[in-house]
Amino acid sequence: MNDAPIHRWDGHCLASSNDALVKEEPLEIRVRGATLTVTMRTPGHDPELASGLLLSEGIVREQGDIVEMAPCGSADASTRQNVLNVFLAPRVKFEASKTARLQLTTSSCGLCGKGSIESIRQLFPSIQETARKRLPVDNLLALPAKLRRQQAVFERTGGVHAAGLFSYAGRRVVVREDIGRHNAVDKVLGFAFLKEKLPCHHHVLLVSGRVSFEIMQKALAAQIPVVAAVSAPSSLAVEFAVDSGQTLVGFLRNGGFNVYAHKWRLEPP
Amino acid sequence: MNDAPIHRWDGHCLASSNDALVKEEPLEIRVRGATLTVTMRTPGHDPELASGLLLSEGIVREQGDIVEMAPCGSADASTRQNVLNVFLAPRVKFEASKTARLQLTTSSCGLCGKGSIESIRQLFPSIQETARKRLPVDNLLALPAKLRRQQAVFERTGGVHAAGLFSYAGRRVVVREDIGRHNAVDKVLGFAFLKEKLPCHHHVLLVSGRVSFEIMQKALAAQIPVVAAVSAPSSLAVEFAVDSGQTLVGFLRNGGFNVYAHKWRLEPP
Repeated sequence: MNDAPIHRWDGHCLASSNDALVKEEPLEIRVRGATLTVTMRTPGHDPELASGLLLSEGIVREQGDIVEMAPCGSADASTRQNVLNVFLAPRVKFEASKTARLQLTTSSCGLCGKGSIESIRQLFPSIQETARKRLPVDNLLALPAKLRRQQAVFERTGGVHAAGLFSYAGRRVVVREDIGRHNAVDKVLGFAFLKEKLPCHHHVLLVSGRVSFEIMQKALAAQIPVVAAVSAPSSLAVEFAVDSGQTLVGFLRNGGFNVYAHKWRLEPP
Repeated sequence: MNDAPIHRWDGHCLASSNDALVKEEPLEIRVRGATLTVTMRTPGHDPELASGLLLSEGIVREQGDIVEMAPCGSADASTRQNVLNVFLAPRVKFEASKTARLQLTTSSCGLCGKGSIESIRQLFPSIQETARKRLPVDNLLALPAKLRRQQAVFERTGGVHAAGLFSYAGRRVVVREDIGRHNAVDKVLGFAFLKEKLPCHHHVLLVSGRVSFEIMQKALAAQIPVVAAVSAPSSLAVEFAVDSGQTLVGFLRNGGFNVYAHKWRLEPP
């Protein structure tokens, strides 16, 4: 966080004050020397961010697919922390021009709309649980408070998204904050990936804001069966959840929630 | 909006119900036959979205730079509304590989960090007002309620971002909603662009959520001198505002606000 001198309107005048700002800086992620993407992120946990993104894009599947991650040695001191080199195992197939994200930005007409979404969904299998375990509703209802307790940056800045991974029993695996909604999720997935906790069967991904299609895609990449959000899902997030076998919960707050897909995983008291 | 059958937890059981979902679909924007980008957006006002994006990227500067925008004729009926062809005037220079956004994603080390931000800022001049007019604080304080009154989709879904353009006198120029924060801003800028209201001197851009560096960049492209947000700005948004001469207001709610840069434009009662 940065502290910045500001002026605060107190109802009568603009008074000098200070405010904690959430940090936002670009991170360039390079894979085998080629730039995969540049994302605006809150610095910290960058290897998690990179590996979560590579997982979501279908480039890596298991921890050993990544040999090493290190700041770029040839960049100068002021920028090197913003350039992360990812070294993949020789067995990993990677063509910069063929990642899902780049496919999207170079797709032809036929790939847009239903077609492109379906092609992304087919990158990953639907949820394949070994056992049809259920998530107790009381444990689900308790999650937002657990997420909030870990939101150190939000408490000071009010300016970040949070994502957390929890077991069905309500145990916290990891919570991450970032100025970017997707980055917070990538950091959570990257943590699970690097700690060899994939697939995340019988776990819940909780996000502090809304749920878009891309969040569902990322959860599916980690085989997370339940995604819950404090706010609303989009129409495409719901369609995706229905098709991929994911349970989707929205508006999880004030002791209530909505279920948009696959409610069978929830177990009322 | 889509209506979806859902289940709502009422404290005792999962009861059948309905919920309005905000629509999310991909839009592919093509310029001179090449794909510029694919963005997940709420359908509607697509020509505004495309022209606001082209303006933010420094590709177009005035209304006549765009000759026509039309759904892709060669796409099939189900997807053609998700592919928009933009026809530029012959005088407009455009190289798909050289837009700011694509430069970012293919940048080398030296462009990351301070360097890349500075290069984006230099695409646009700092705020160049013809007169040093000031924004009355009371008019600023009244804006969130005016934005909220136009948020038709939010009222039903709770799932979208809003952006609005207002004059210093508090008159509403346009309000747009979208599932993507940046898209809502692009639609507002595109409206101003297509109605030949640029540069937007003596106007305020209000966003319903947080302010990132990219929002400031977009506002600068339209020469909007004041950006206000209901929630927090990022550290880079503040740096950018200071450098570009923009007034940046955050946490504009409940009768108060913070000023992060160039407070001289605000006129207390």
